[in-house]
Amino acid sequence: MKRREFLSGAAATGVGAAATAGLATPAIAQDRRELKLVTTWPKNFPGLGTSAERWAQRITAMSGGRLTVKVFAAGELVPAFEAFDAVSAGTADMYHGAEYYWQGKSKAFNFFAAVPFGLTATEINAWIYHAGGQQLWDELSAGFNIKPMLVANTGVQMGGWFNKEINSLEDYKGLKIRMPGLGGEVLRRIGAAAVSLPGGEIFPALQSGAIDATEWVGPWNDLAFGFYKVTKYYYYPGFHEPGTALSGGVNLDVWNSLSDEDKAIIEAAAAAENDYTLAEFNARNGDALATLINEHGVELRRFSDDVLTAIGTAAGEVVAEVAAGDAMTQKVYDSFVDFRSKAIGWARIADQAYWNARELPYTYAAKE
Amino acid sequence: MKRREFLSGAAATGVGAAATAGLATPAIAQDRRELKLVTTWPKNFPGLGTSAERWAQRITAMSGGRLTVKVFAAGELVPAFEAFDAVSAGTADMYHGAEYYWQGKSKAFNFFAAVPFGLTATEINAWIYHAGGQQLWDELSAGFNIKPMLVANTGVQMGGWFNKEINSLEDYKGLKIRMPGLGGEVLRRIGAAAVSLPGGEIFPALQSGAIDATEWVGPWNDLAFGFYKVTKYYYYPGFHEPGTALSGGVNLDVWNSLSDEDKAIIEAAAAAENDYTLAEFNARNGDALATLINEHGVELRRFSDDVLTAIGTAAGEVVAEVAAGDAMTQKVYDSFVDFRSKAIGWARIADQAYWNARELPYTYAAKE
Repeated sequence: MKRREFLSGAAATGVGAAATAGLATPAIAQDRRELKLVTTWPKNFPGLGTSAERWAQRITAMSGGRLTVKVFAAGELVPAFEAFDAVSAGTADMYHGAEYYWQGKSKAFNFFAAVPFGLTATEINAWIYHAGGQQLWDELSAGFNIKPMLVANTGVQMGGWFNKEINSLEDYKGLKIRMPGLGGEVLRRIGAAAVSLPGGEIFPALQSGAIDATEWVGPWNDLAFGFYKVTKYYYYPGFHEPGTALSGGVNLDVWNSLSDEDKAIIEAAAAAENDYTLAEFNARNGDALATLINEHGVELRRFSDDVLTAIGTAAGEVVAEVAAGDAMTQKVYDSFVDFRSKAIGWARIADQAYWNARELPYTYAAKE
Repeated sequence: MKRREFLSGAAATGVGAAATAGLATPAIAQDRRELKLVTTWPKNFPGLGTSAERWAQRITAMSGGRLTVKVFAAGELVPAFEAFDAVSAGTADMYHGAEYYWQGKSKAFNFFAAVPFGLTATEINAWIYHAGGQQLWDELSAGFNIKPMLVANTGVQMGGWFNKEINSLEDYKGLKIRMPGLGGEVLRRIGAAAVSLPGGEIFPALQSGAIDATEWVGPWNDLAFGFYKVTKYYYYPGFHEPGTALSGGVNLDVWNSLSDEDKAIIEAAAAAENDYTLAEFNARNGDALATLINEHGVELRRFSDDVLTAIGTAAGEVVAEVAAGDAMTQKVYDSFVDFRSKAIGWARIADQAYWNARELPYTYAAKE
């Protein structure tokens, strides 16, 4: 018999008597709880919606059903971008989304999702968990009655789909490209006509020629959206989102009402999902990229050094200007750029150096 | 009041009566359980021993004390390298170690920790979680009555400490270097006199000149061991351990006796630690490297392309020969090298391409 059956059975058959003999009744009353989780994703959207579902399932499984998390896709309880307000106000208990969606509340939220030429997934984890990021995030979100945490990461995204080759900065002049947020602002600085469109409107806009280019996520998600049917040039690297953190938020009153046990369950479920989802993107993206190239004739292209250098400089300006807007954002930015410079130093010696060494012309373990 | 207090209180004050009224008594008997966790690490050894402690603490916290995990450092219950046998036989319930320590049982275990020129941390996670690695690992370990899982990762390690510069392959000839396992075998192929020494014996051996060089882990751990006091040349990248997975194992009879709830808790605690520990190494290594260079005058050096190319080829030979030794190892190897080639393809477009782009001479967000 499962513990929860024992407990609910016991509640019905007289543990109340034991409770009156010195044990507080709230322990029973609190024992089962349903939490409403609103997300910014379509139902079961690969990698993002599915990760939200898994976060919920892990919490329910680990609590033996004591905490049941009911997941609402975007629009089911509230529209996608109202998830934050709903949790802040207590209409919902938790959200699963990406912090840059809340930049209308504070520009500082961008740093907890992705900024152009910022941190990769492993770097943002290091900053949040071990270099002061979580404390700043807690402070920022507490102002909105929310406890935030990392819950997934897409890894490095792709630079986007283009209907022509981008050989120089000139090719960006007047280019109608779908790129929301800070990435879009960066591209406007180098002359592009960046626009924001919801996911569902991108394909028809590309097909009709209303836009010349778009970014979305990476091969796994982009393959599903079918962009290869109307454009052939697929560019990398995704300078605008080099490792987008997805986040969970819990209404702070709800959070504070939870036992240490339930807090530990929700946090570990989030960290486990953070690990599991990044691995999923890395595994699926490689396969999907091969499918795009080999089965759909997609042409992979790298942005030129000239283009990336100009974009990097514009990104530095945009991010610094965003930071200067208010004291909290400046504080987050200061911590972020300080960690960024350390991360660049370490990557150069560690992963980056190793990966570059792996490009040398040695022979390795060819299967016979 | 905490749930566990309620339960233990209830057990002492008459819930037994309710249990006889149709509720199975084992639910109470199973309710608290102490698990013995043996590790291969010194007590609270930074990053490795501390991660084992955190894994245990997370399990206890999430189960509200129902599962208490008692951690034994190397030698406290069994010697480090007998952890596997102890768990296999049921003398201990769980271990926290690195699978290559069990290569005497099967060479296939190497692939679930690290092999020279193999996978990085994010890549091994992708292989284990999403590309068949866990199924192979389960099959391998079940033969020893163990359920295995990822529980931490050191990230890319350093190439090691040398008492002279390594400018060409000639400099490896006869070099007395401490490098255990497959990395040592690789270096023997290029002419080095690779030896294996326990951690505690490395410093005196370096100091006395009994060895000319050593590898250990990375800046965070190496700083603590004080190697900078007797050698100055610190080489990268750590081709021999590009992202060493640390692992947890649970006695399979114990595992099968656990409720779904407790299995979910142990697995999520492991995945959460896997995420948290890699981030910790990435954060601490960068800081420690700066200390080594700026405060202790350590000279950072990259192995030359010639040296890395020769080592890469020797690594390919060694790993393939290891695989050919038995059918199970060959099966694991086939899966591993297949995933490795996909991972190289994806890294080239994703993290590696982004990190290399970050080296371009743009200006970014300088603090005023």
